[in-house]
Amino acid sequence: MDTAITPGSRISFETSPDRYRHWKLSVDGPVATLSMDVQEDGGLSTDYRLKLNSYDLAVDIELADAVQRFRFEHPDVHAVVITSLKERIFCAGANIFMLRGSSHAAKVNFCKFTNETRLAIEDASENSGIKFVAALNGICAGGGYELALACDEILLVDDGNSAVSLPETPLLGVLPGTGGLTRVVDKRKVRRDLADVFSTVAEGIKGKRAVEWRLVDAVYPTSQFKERVARRAQELARLSDRPADGSGVQLGPLTPKVTDDTLHYSNVRLDLDRQRRVATLTVRAPEGPEPSTPPEILAAGDRFWPLRTFRELDDALLRLRSNEPLIGTVVVKTEGDPAQVLAIDRILTEHAAHWLVREITLLIKRTLKRMDLTSRSFFALIEPGSAFAGTLFELALAADRSYMLDDPDRPNTIALSPMNAGPLKMSNGLTRLETRFLADPEHAPEVLAEPEPFDARAAHDAGLVSFAPDELDWDDEVRLAIEGRAALSPDALTGMEANLRFAGPETMETKIFGRLTAWQNWIFQRPNAVGEKGALTAYGTQARPEFDFRRT
Amino acid sequence: MDTAITPGSRISFETSPDRYRHWKLSVDGPVATLSMDVQEDGGLSTDYRLKLNSYDLAVDIELADAVQRFRFEHPDVHAVVITSLKERIFCAGANIFMLRGSSHAAKVNFCKFTNETRLAIEDASENSGIKFVAALNGICAGGGYELALACDEILLVDDGNSAVSLPETPLLGVLPGTGGLTRVVDKRKVRRDLADVFSTVAEGIKGKRAVEWRLVDAVYPTSQFKERVARRAQELARLSDRPADGSGVQLGPLTPKVTDDTLHYSNVRLDLDRQRRVATLTVRAPEGPEPSTPPEILAAGDRFWPLRTFRELDDALLRLRSNEPLIGTVVVKTEGDPAQVLAIDRILTEHAAHWLVREITLLIKRTLKRMDLTSRSFFALIEPGSAFAGTLFELALAADRSYMLDDPDRPNTIALSPMNAGPLKMSNGLTRLETRFLADPEHAPEVLAEPEPFDARAAHDAGLVSFAPDELDWDDEVRLAIEGRAALSPDALTGMEANLRFAGPETMETKIFGRLTAWQNWIFQRPNAVGEKGALTAYGTQARPEFDFRRT
Repeated sequence: MDTAITPGSRISFETSPDRYRHWKLSVDGPVATLSMDVQEDGGLSTDYRLKLNSYDLAVDIELADAVQRFRFEHPDVHAVVITSLKERIFCAGANIFMLRGSSHAAKVNFCKFTNETRLAIEDASENSGIKFVAALNGICAGGGYELALACDEILLVDDGNSAVSLPETPLLGVLPGTGGLTRVVDKRKVRRDLADVFSTVAEGIKGKRAVEWRLVDAVYPTSQFKERVARRAQELARLSDRPADGSGVQLGPLTPKVTDDTLHYSNVRLDLDRQRRVATLTVRAPEGPEPSTPPEILAAGDRFWPLRTFRELDDALLRLRSNEPLIGTVVVKTEGDPAQVLAIDRILTEHAAHWLVREITLLIKRTLKRMDLTSRSFFALIEPGSAFAGTLFELALAADRSYMLDDPDRPNTIALSPMNAGPLKMSNGLTRLETRFLADPEHAPEVLAEPEPFDARAAHDAGLVSFAPDELDWDDEVRLAIEGRAALSPDALTGMEANLRFAGPETMETKIFGRLTAWQNWIFQRPNAVGEKGALTAYGTQARPEFDFRRT
Repeated sequence: MDTAITPGSRISFETSPDRYRHWKLSVDGPVATLSMDVQEDGGLSTDYRLKLNSYDLAVDIELADAVQRFRFEHPDVHAVVITSLKERIFCAGANIFMLRGSSHAAKVNFCKFTNETRLAIEDASENSGIKFVAALNGICAGGGYELALACDEILLVDDGNSAVSLPETPLLGVLPGTGGLTRVVDKRKVRRDLADVFSTVAEGIKGKRAVEWRLVDAVYPTSQFKERVARRAQELARLSDRPADGSGVQLGPLTPKVTDDTLHYSNVRLDLDRQRRVATLTVRAPEGPEPSTPPEILAAGDRFWPLRTFRELDDALLRLRSNEPLIGTVVVKTEGDPAQVLAIDRILTEHAAHWLVREITLLIKRTLKRMDLTSRSFFALIEPGSAFAGTLFELALAADRSYMLDDPDRPNTIALSPMNAGPLKMSNGLTRLETRFLADPEHAPEVLAEPEPFDARAAHDAGLVSFAPDELDWDDEVRLAIEGRAALSPDALTGMEANLRFAGPETMETKIFGRLTAWQNWIFQRPNAVGEKGALTAYGTQARPEFDFRRT
């Protein structure tokens, strides 16, 4: 069992355009272009070369960063063209040698992050007024096509050679697991039998047939391609409600203080107890008055508390996932003055229509979804001095359980705000309160209408916390709960949490993480894929895969 | 690789009450009682003993049979009480030693069948007017509670000892995968944090707390239990729209002719080509006029073509799943006069309100769902002499692809009927036509309105078949498609089909087979469950499980 995690192997998810190695970013009026030009030796590891615009996590971290920066730094960007600088190749998908060399957990984490990045693209389209055009100027295979599927429109060059394809099943014995199978039938609504053919034909589908099957929106001859792409991007840009001009806010580096067992940001702190396999995640409320008007918020930029705090939380969650596999349980705490959080919530609510406030709220929403999808148990501890109010109370709602100290001598309250009533929906399309109170849909509006904060007894009676032990029981009850959790099978907990957290409706987004991902994770363990003679193992070698043909 | 399948190891899914070893069936007016009394030595294998009303597939085959017989043989049964004849124990769930000794595929098939049985109970409640009461007269653990969850109401004895529990995660390192996690939060709408606690507390929850947490509907002291159960069953029975009296139709044995490579029923035939790993499934249309009024149908009983044919198809699919793992591809054919199928459809449609016709239609619906959930590739071949009309065209719609011969010299048509327009919905809540034409919701009513049969060209243009090769291409195209399919990774195909077949909305039913089952299958391969020191392996031995605590 490899428990040693050397600092050198830790992945950082922070980057910035001046450090990009794989993407070129250019802005021309309302249309930006993000061009993939993967450096073969620029992957996270030197064990593989990223040929033919294939990608690994390093490439995707830059993509996620670029999409984030368009939102915050370039409010005047209204459409983004995603294309390639390589001749005749758009993108060959996830690098197969990288996948083959990755541990099971690394494969799963890689797919989760790339899925989140593609969903962030769709979130920007749906909620931020930034439309995306995939300009496929060459071969577009596997994960390359899955990236295209996340865009609003897919335009393919008609050069007699360039095709779109999902060759994972026929060539590698795995699934197009970055949303591919789901988006083909659920987003693009390709007929299921045609999707079946498409997903088993390694060479893919090109030209007119790709349009007829709804795999792409249009094909254009090479001579017209650039111009048609540019024209379409301009048309889509005109649909945006983003500002016509004006500058955005720069997203500076987060510069956490990293020690062997802490990650210390300005408002977020992660303390690791590897021996107990428990981390404590602490989020601090604002210390004093924050900017309250859009001009003030623009001026404060990335120092504005909610933007800074949720960027930090997002980064902490990503590092935890990738770098701390042995931490199975996360104790979630908050500190500070709940009134300051509620003041922030009033600002976010009052100026919700302002582009920057909207972006900040969407970032909070995506970060909380990242927490929902993190395969760790979260237990919220609500103690005197905590600030579980409004937006920060979502952390308790996202947790698997919450414990609130009921000590009459030490006041301890939680509070709701309009931020709990809609802007921070889960991936199932419901708020966390709605999901929590599925049995009684009237109850969420009832608790939201309550003007006063809830003390422990009231919070418990209202169903807002799981348990409210008194001061005599608190220490033992909390300790036993955490110790008990840390003793259970980590795999069973991952599966259990993936089921219990997403009650209610499923959406395309939850289908990607539920149905598709769970099947892909199953296949990622099958000898027919990863065994000595499995297809993923055999790919690119002289050997042909040998299957155990028994169906499961 | 174990490819030898001896006839002796083949599982039969047919039984009848006179052969039951594990259930006692009694009928008292409108209320029937199904009492679990598992014979310890009555399992499918002698490797384990079915103690404490634990169950294996043999027990569940009887349960499925009993539910089916209530529907057809006892129209005067309006409510069913499911209880136990053992003292202080309702059911201990799936037998753990059976699970431990099962291959991965056997585990997966076992869970699939038990899930289908529980969904058949819910289908009877929702659509047949038979309500189910789980009368938990003792400890109810794991799969026992999952059976209770499938009932309309759960009544628990309050004797200070009897609890409901889902101990799979804490004791075995696996999931309550027979719908347990899904139904707790999605059907009973238990709050997610309470569900989290419940699913990790091995000893379960009892008494008033079980009611407060919505895990059961009521608890009654031992002295009142039987009477309260009986009273509640009578109340539920009064809600039924089933006949007050009258006899049903007996479901006689199917008596297929079984040879080494064929399963030959009266209207269904399965021919196995194990070397090519391909089977041919052929369904025959009625040969001549069939009964057309309810009295005639009642008199014909289980000889009525749709009832007989879909019972046979259901049995063939079950045997294929369990007994023929090497068959990866199934060629679906029909034979006979399509006009006879359409005549049947008119009868089923005209008399849809009659209890027996309703049951027959529901059986067809469940059988087609069984096909949707069968992890084999289905390719429909529509050739001259076939009868892909109405209900039998659903076989082509359920297939992953369909090929229709376009030979002007040999007439070959398909036809739709009202049976394609609603009565045979998939588990996603849509008809197969609606699922197929998700991109254009107007198109399903358009093709249904077409009064004439479709020839190959018209069927292809209407999107009703995948391909319509002419007589020159037919042989090669079909052969290459089947050979190509049979060469692919069986695991990747299982995952791919599980994703492409269920486009559109998810329901509780599809969540059970998508989200829950896929995660369970993942866990069923994890060393933390099934490895040498895994929890499932260690259970009941002196050894304690040892986990690799890295989270995935």
